[in-house]
Amino acid sequence: MLSFGCDYNKGAHRKILERLLETNEVPTAGYGMDAYCDEAKEKIKRQCQNPDAEVHFLVGGTQSNQIVIDALLTKYQGVIAAETGHVSTHEAGAIEFTGHKVLAMPHTDGKLMPDTVEHYLKNFYEDANHDHMVFPGMVYISHPTEYGTLYSLQELERLSAVCHEYEIPLYLDGARLGYGLMSRGTDVTLADVARLCDVFYIGGTKVGALCGEAVVFTHRNTPEHFLTTVKQHGALLAKGRLLGIQFDALFTDDLYFEISRHAVEMAELLKDVFREKGYPFFIESPTNQIFVILENQKMEAIKKQVEFGFWEKVDEDHTVVRFVTSWATTSEEIEGVRALL
Amino acid sequence: MLSFGCDYNKGAHRKILERLLETNEVPTAGYGMDAYCDEAKEKIKRQCQNPDAEVHFLVGGTQSNQIVIDALLTKYQGVIAAETGHVSTHEAGAIEFTGHKVLAMPHTDGKLMPDTVEHYLKNFYEDANHDHMVFPGMVYISHPTEYGTLYSLQELERLSAVCHEYEIPLYLDGARLGYGLMSRGTDVTLADVARLCDVFYIGGTKVGALCGEAVVFTHRNTPEHFLTTVKQHGALLAKGRLLGIQFDALFTDDLYFEISRHAVEMAELLKDVFREKGYPFFIESPTNQIFVILENQKMEAIKKQVEFGFWEKVDEDHTVVRFVTSWATTSEEIEGVRALL
Amino acid sequence: MLSFGCDYNKGAHRKILERLLETNEVPTAGYGMDAYCDEAKEKIKRQCQNPDAEVHFLVGGTQSNQIVIDALLTKYQGVIAAETGHVSTHEAGAIEFTGHKVLAMPHTDGKLMPDTVEHYLKNFYEDANHDHMVFPGMVYISHPTEYGTLYSLQELERLSAVCHEYEIPLYLDGARLGYGLMSRGTDVTLADVARLCDVFYIGGTKVGALCGEAVVFTHRNTPEHFLTTVKQHGALLAKGRLLGIQFDALFTDDLYFEISRHAVEMAELLKDVFREKGYPFFIESPTNQIFVILENQKMEAIKKQVEFGFWEKVDEDHTVVRFVTSWATTSEEIEGVRALL
Amino acid sequence: MLSFGCDYNKGAHRKILERLLETNEVPTAGYGMDAYCDEAKEKIKRQCQNPDAEVHFLVGGTQSNQIVIDALLTKYQGVIAAETGHVSTHEAGAIEFTGHKVLAMPHTDGKLMPDTVEHYLKNFYEDANHDHMVFPGMVYISHPTEYGTLYSLQELERLSAVCHEYEIPLYLDGARLGYGLMSRGTDVTLADVARLCDVFYIGGTKVGALCGEAVVFTHRNTPEHFLTTVKQHGALLAKGRLLGIQFDALFTDDLYFEISRHAVEMAELLKDVFREKGYPFFIESPTNQIFVILENQKMEAIKKQVEFGFWEKVDEDHTVVRFVTSWATTSEEIEGVRALL
Repeated sequence: MLSFGCDYNKGAHRKILERLLETNEVPTAGYGMDAYCDEAKEKIKRQCQNPDAEVHFLVGGTQSNQIVIDALLTKYQGVIAAETGHVSTHEAGAIEFTGHKVLAMPHTDGKLMPDTVEHYLKNFYEDANHDHMVFPGMVYISHPTEYGTLYSLQELERLSAVCHEYEIPLYLDGARLGYGLMSRGTDVTLADVARLCDVFYIGGTKVGALCGEAVVFTHRNTPEHFLTTVKQHGALLAKGRLLGIQFDALFTDDLYFEISRHAVEMAELLKDVFREKGYPFFIESPTNQIFVILENQKMEAIKKQVEFGFWEKVDEDHTVVRFVTSWATTSEEIEGVRALL
Repeated sequence: MLSFGCDYNKGAHRKILERLLETNEVPTAGYGMDAYCDEAKEKIKRQCQNPDAEVHFLVGGTQSNQIVIDALLTKYQGVIAAETGHVSTHEAGAIEFTGHKVLAMPHTDGKLMPDTVEHYLKNFYEDANHDHMVFPGMVYISHPTEYGTLYSLQELERLSAVCHEYEIPLYLDGARLGYGLMSRGTDVTLADVARLCDVFYIGGTKVGALCGEAVVFTHRNTPEHFLTTVKQHGALLAKGRLLGIQFDALFTDDLYFEISRHAVEMAELLKDVFREKGYPFFIESPTNQIFVILENQKMEAIKKQVEFGFWEKVDEDHTVVRFVTSWATTSEEIEGVRALL
Repeated sequence: MLSFGCDYNKGAHRKILERLLETNEVPTAGYGMDAYCDEAKEKIKRQCQNPDAEVHFLVGGTQSNQIVIDALLTKYQGVIAAETGHVSTHEAGAIEFTGHKVLAMPHTDGKLMPDTVEHYLKNFYEDANHDHMVFPGMVYISHPTEYGTLYSLQELERLSAVCHEYEIPLYLDGARLGYGLMSRGTDVTLADVARLCDVFYIGGTKVGALCGEAVVFTHRNTPEHFLTTVKQHGALLAKGRLLGIQFDALFTDDLYFEISRHAVEMAELLKDVFREKGYPFFIESPTNQIFVILENQKMEAIKKQVEFGFWEKVDEDHTVVRFVTSWATTSEEIEGVRALL
Repeated sequence: MLSFGCDYNKGAHRKILERLLETNEVPTAGYGMDAYCDEAKEKIKRQCQNPDAEVHFLVGGTQSNQIVIDALLTKYQGVIAAETGHVSTHEAGAIEFTGHKVLAMPHTDGKLMPDTVEHYLKNFYEDANHDHMVFPGMVYISHPTEYGTLYSLQELERLSAVCHEYEIPLYLDGARLGYGLMSRGTDVTLADVARLCDVFYIGGTKVGALCGEAVVFTHRNTPEHFLTTVKQHGALLAKGRLLGIQFDALFTDDLYFEISRHAVEMAELLKDVFREKGYPFFIESPTNQIFVILENQKMEAIKKQVEFGFWEKVDEDHTVVRFVTSWATTSEEIEGVRALL
């Protein structure tokens, strides 16, 4: 069975497991107050080229979104997001659970365009009734988006400028950040993200770790008593080292970038296969998710030998499916797909 | 440095790490829908001797308490707990965060006595104003308690009977359940817990795992759409297998009980050391936590060579300190303490 | 100054104040447990022609929406509403405040069409990922809508049927219900509303009362311990009689309908004035709110002599404005507008 | 039937109703943006002798507590209160509903003593684990308390000093504030309250109004966008004038104080009656609530002719009952009680 269903279907990159084994018997303080966490934080700050960055480790993506958004918003504020954003649709209402509305906006290929945000904010403050409305208190974007697409540096710069004009933070959900940074055509670096966003997270779960996300506040703007907030949300690990050790491994010898580059290369090869065989793409994704249109008959035929995801129907006879690559994808698997098509 | 500060200061039991390594490359479905989780659930059910049990894996203890309590309580209900209960004091308000009051009651050595609960419930329903009050919707106990103490079978039976009389569930927080079950004097088995409680969790984090707790609903009473509730609380792991594999290891060849028995034996040896040397205990704990009273001078003297926890002051010259054993404690470490005293 | 700004700009209908005066010295129980509340509830049930109806009085509209929706939804559910619905936009996030998402849908003249709802529900349950999404747990409509428009009996029947098919309640926000029932062209009666909806409220504040809304559960489906839920939301009046007495007056000798009919008649006269003078309407509203398009110059000119509401810009030179009538509107005021135009 | 059951069993003081009648036809802006509210606010500020005071009107007491506490607390904070405080026991969890814990402390005759608060705060910050606990973010007191007792000026000054030392606000629930200010022995004035508390409310509902409480922030410390917060909690009245007009009446010609003084005088007369007849008091209350111990036989005998409240059992044969006076209590009613005993 060829495995392209998602980027979280296997364990962890070998180097991460090895690091867990090596450090296993060393006693440390609990709750993330250990030397492994400290070391990992330093390495991440260095990669961000941002001495004012503050790093905190959390377990998962929805958890990170919920905690960061809840910690930064005032009680009467909501968060602006694309209607296709993960927080808008696929987190079971985790943001509303904390009392905050997701202010959903139209998207372009999964992206929230700067003009959309600016227009909304301008209108909001011009509306005489805005005291009866949810105040926009943050902008949420994902990069890569849920469609695998990427913001250009210019778009990020404009989003950042709009946010600063209206004095609300820009938050970037980087569940798959590595794949964005290693995408062939991108002009956005980790240092750019750490300069233009007020807070973002570097996804570990979907980029080779067993679990874990590194939340980065970029200008010493960690909310006061953030550890208590994490605890209050049920998200504080007693063995916080589990996250520190993994991110220490990911940010040693550029493992994080190597994993991401590999997955992107595999995705490019896979796109070549589809292109050669004449399959059209539903959307142009430059990262590790590929959205391709298959005839239903073909889809059914190959399904027994390759795992992929259903995305949506196109018409009676065609379907959009999603193929995802990861650190564990091999060129043999790509050849396997080629043979199948 | 001798290490008795807590039972979460090292990684995981070797067998757990080995199992993670062995299974690492096998692709599975995400979100806990994998064969490892299924297998672990079956093993736990068997140990519980309860075919109606339903098992769900979560990451941490506060998270489990928050989700179970929130999922079972109706919106206008609160949870009865000892004032020393973990949910009352050391979870940063994680229960109130979900809108529910913790109805704190007096304790006896950390235990919530059946009479206390019965008296409260009786009075509540007799009070003509109870419509203006928080309805008691659940009883929370921890076993072992925060003081390392244990309920007797008779106490558990009475608590269970009182809860059933008032038609509210009994929930047992088993963050350190193994140490309770392997305690020398206990008459409570895992099957008893699974028979008398409506829901409980088997703690993994503090009993040899990297992370993870196994929540058990004992009579097919998992709340509807529980996975959605877990997601809404930000607690659903994409790589749910991380929990399944660990619990599969813990419940293979009685590893969970072996780990627990070892820690309890080490604790008994350590208690012997303190007894021999004439140190009084603050409380009689039959599990892996020992609360002993030290002269401050002594405490300061040994602190450089042994790690332990501060509990509370007794008087100007004496302090209660906590020593904790785990799967990783060795008899050499016990001898080390003896030499120090 | 002619007063068409809103329907809550004066005190209460004279008969309501008289009734408050007459009953003022009579001692009663608190919290709505008085004979006036009982009497008013009976009268409302009679008008609803529904012996299974249960009536509860609350103070305001947003409060009623928040409490009814929170009381009926399970914790992981959200409420479907038109994107123009009051709960979607103008209640400052009062629904999200209680942890529930508003699932906003496209509208037609402010109305949520049955097909829209059916399509959404069908798709939701067909989506393999719906466990990661907010479950739709209720349908919210307002009648009249925020644009003054009305559902036809057939539309209400279809909405009701769709809700029943998917086993979720239909909730009707009747902040201005009287104006809908007394509209010239409507085929919807109060008995229809009480038959087709699972819960609705009869607005008092905007239909002649000082404050107050009558929430009606239509088939003995009041949520358990509803009084406690009301208290928990900070909405229980110590002097609950204030609401009972007012609704008793409103439902004595058809005062509620008389007030509503009067306002609708005044609105029809006012529409005639605008029509005669050649002003186009932004939307065809058959109730007490009129949305008319004025040239900006005209708008500025008359603004000093007549109060009305700004709605939205049409283009550089034209604006939609809202004129609202009420129990207190006089034909002299209508003539005043005619003179001005 | 003699009526001593509570102070909210009749309508409103005659002067309030008259004022509602006089102003009924005058059109105003909605949502409290009217001249009556403005005027009432000015009068209250004058009585507070505090030009920095900011006044906001809300409908009820639990609502005021919920909104003030939620608006002032940071998300990870709780509110310190006596275990007998209204927010601790009789508000159906309205505070926890907003995510905040009530940190319940021992009381003395219903009062939260300054030493209790200071001791708690000192210990909290000394506890090495306080990051895992709810942060104390406010002190709540009621004056008069739930037992009708009063703080001395010195006690209020000390509470205020402790709060300022720890930089948390002092909040006074004045549901029955008038009765406290007009108590014979008190040395606390309204100006003292407005000087020593950071926020408090002047109760209207239980002091002669139909409904309404005046929340006073004492040093221009109204939380930002407070109107939006009020709306979000479902507490914003469309006809805000209903509150403004009533408080304007209450603070015209000292009506508020006159009503309060009358009720206190009636209570003193009633206490004389009980004293003469040899009935012991359960607690010494200097305000409008009297807690007296009756033989059960006597209690049953008089119950058909006088309404009073059950408080608690003393022993098999005796019961504490509560008699409450108000603006509407007459000396004839006092004589009626004398005749009965």
